[in-house]
Amino acid sequence: MSTALERGRELTQKLNPDLERILDDRYGALLPDFAEGLIEWAYGRHYARPGLDLKTRQLCTIAALTALGGQTGPQLKINIEHTLAAGASRTEIVEAIWQMAVYGGLPAAINGLNAAMDVFAADDNAAT
Amino acid sequence: MSTALERGRELTQKLNPDLERILDDRYGALLPDFAEGLIEWAYGRHYARPGLDLKTRQLCTIAALTALGGQTGPQLKINIEHTLAAGASRTEIVEAIWQMAVYGGLPAAINGLNAAMDVFAADDNAAT
Amino acid sequence: MSTALERGRELTQKLNPDLERILDDRYGALLPDFAEGLIEWAYGRHYARPGLDLKTRQLCTIAALTALGGQTGPQLKINIEHTLAAGASRTEIVEAIWQMAVYGGLPAAINGLNAAMDVFAADDNAAT
Amino acid sequence: MSTALERGRELTQKLNPDLERILDDRYGALLPDFAEGLIEWAYGRHYARPGLDLKTRQLCTIAALTALGGQTGPQLKINIEHTLAAGASRTEIVEAIWQMAVYGGLPAAINGLNAAMDVFAADDNAAT
Amino acid sequence: MSTALERGRELTQKLNPDLERILDDRYGALLPDFAEGLIEWAYGRHYARPGLDLKTRQLCTIAALTALGGQTGPQLKINIEHTLAAGASRTEIVEAIWQMAVYGGLPAAINGLNAAMDVFAADDNAAT
Amino acid sequence: MSTALERGRELTQKLNPDLERILDDRYGALLPDFAEGLIEWAYGRHYARPGLDLKTRQLCTIAALTALGGQTGPQLKINIEHTLAAGASRTEIVEAIWQMAVYGGLPAAINGLNAAMDVFAADDNAAT
Repeated sequence: MSTALERGRELTQKLNPDLERILDDRYGALLPDFAEGLIEWAYGRHYARPGLDLKTRQLCTIAALTALGGQTGPQLKINIEHTLAAGASRTEIVEAIWQMAVYGGLPAAINGLNAAMDVFAADDNAAT
Repeated sequence: MSTALERGRELTQKLNPDLERILDDRYGALLPDFAEGLIEWAYGRHYARPGLDLKTRQLCTIAALTALGGQTGPQLKINIEHTLAAGASRTEIVEAIWQMAVYGGLPAAINGLNAAMDVFAADDNAAT
Repeated sequence: MSTALERGRELTQKLNPDLERILDDRYGALLPDFAEGLIEWAYGRHYARPGLDLKTRQLCTIAALTALGGQTGPQLKINIEHTLAAGASRTEIVEAIWQMAVYGGLPAAINGLNAAMDVFAADDNAAT
Repeated sequence: MSTALERGRELTQKLNPDLERILDDRYGALLPDFAEGLIEWAYGRHYARPGLDLKTRQLCTIAALTALGGQTGPQLKINIEHTLAAGASRTEIVEAIWQMAVYGGLPAAINGLNAAMDVFAADDNAAT
Repeated sequence: MSTALERGRELTQKLNPDLERILDDRYGALLPDFAEGLIEWAYGRHYARPGLDLKTRQLCTIAALTALGGQTGPQLKINIEHTLAAGASRTEIVEAIWQMAVYGGLPAAINGLNAAMDVFAADDNAAT
Repeated sequence: MSTALERGRELTQKLNPDLERILDDRYGALLPDFAEGLIEWAYGRHYARPGLDLKTRQLCTIAALTALGGQTGPQLKINIEHTLAAGASRTEIVEAIWQMAVYGGLPAAINGLNAAMDVFAADDNAAT
């Protein structure tokens, strides 16, 4: 059986092939094994697991980042891109965010919607 | 088109038919419209919406309550029951919880697993 | 008796008459009933209730948004405007924020003070 | 002008005359100046300030502790007692808590209501 | 160079030699690689790192769990034990907790002190 | 024995001699005793205490601000400067932040690393 690091690398190859290199370029001088550890833990030990399909995993992540609220910005946007890449529609993403008004409160949900609108607008601009 | 309150009542009839009465018995003396408002908002304005299936909505809720951590206990357990009622397997629920170790930290994920184990054990006892 | 949506609309007419339209302009394409649901829940089911006067309700909101910290920015600023509109003085608002240093910690309180100073400065500029 | 510690002691004499002694009995062996520092900071530097009346300050505290959610239990209950002592009615307290459903989410508000119901029931029992 | 899993196992051998087995006994039926993943990530990828001594790492963990507040209970207690095992005094632990009153607010700090007092009392009982 | 305010002023003289004046310039018009209260509480009642050395106290603060996540920005940066002033190396600071990935989740840790990189880059620029 492959190691968690190998499973994580295999999955990020599909979702976002430059991810490990981008992370290493940015954080490698401070923390030489940052990118490797993140891929091993987040992708190898979590997203690559059987038992729940990747699209639902990504929607769960979006819901949680929305509800957590405070650290929503950049990580939520990256995960909205990954969730689109995993096959979710924009509507499914918006619904997962808006539902969090019940659990994390209205301000958290509204901040999440703003992040989604920014991602969708950037994607539309990039497509034209 | 039906109102949000009507849509919420229709959905809770399926998920947990006694919910509005249980809430009103407990909180009605303090807040006469508590149960009605909760059904209208959480179920009518969120869970009953089209665009994302109920099972995925419930898994998103479990992920968010796990990541929020501090207020996890009773509401997470009720939502684990609702998520089973919406057709999710125990494995899917456990996976949605465990993935939150990446976003809410290990303590939040472990508390979520403990809640799930309590619910599963209670269901197994009730079944025998 | 009027519905929650009607009570919410009646109150926002006084506090911020353009609110539903502004929200619908911004979020209606994504979520057609977003503005209606927000007015129904936040204003109809909460702010419009008897039992606690509107000014105190608004000061409670400012305290809570300050203590929550992470998602403070835009929603706290809007609620500072609503709290002034409900009759609170700048001093009362500043006091409600600063007291949160005890419960949410100094960083949350300082971020809240910064938000209040931004709102007061913008209002002073608009008045000249 | 009196020091913050003196102002804090003067106020706690009215709200809860045994507070400093109770805190010192419990925490003094670990932290000899714990009780003194808490009275100085929370009561002398915050609750004793002019600019916002004590009852509104206490309602703001209840709102914030409800919205923060995770650490709600014991501190929220003590502050509900202090808020009653500052002249608020049970209805005003319940309203400040329930409004937090908008900002901290439904689970936080429900946990807050449960805390209030426990305090009211204990007071009713003590009164009979 | 050893893998993160190997480094984590080497460290937990010193801190708490039964940890992986205890975790696997409790969570292995739900998540067969839970204990292995936790050891790899928390101990192999973090606590076993050079650059900051173990005792300071543990005091940082205690500070953070105190400030996070809501999920403090069981994980904070385990980490207080680990921090004693890493050579910190009870005074150093209490100081790290109490300082969090500045950042996470008084309720979080008080809950942390309560957890420490429970651990110290249990250790004293076990020693007699 | 000196008062908490005197002890706080003595310590800030060493760490950041302009701090009280800077705080008073910014917040004194709103809250005349803001700077004095902050120095008394944070520095006099916490950082100036015996029992835990200042460098470790500062690393604990950095860990907690990272884990809290949402209000990390400006306060974390000021505390990174104070932690360098207390004798910690950049590596020790980065390690205290990165370890928080275990407790506050990856997004919180990554936001903390970004704050540290900003401070280090600004210091390097100022040094040239």
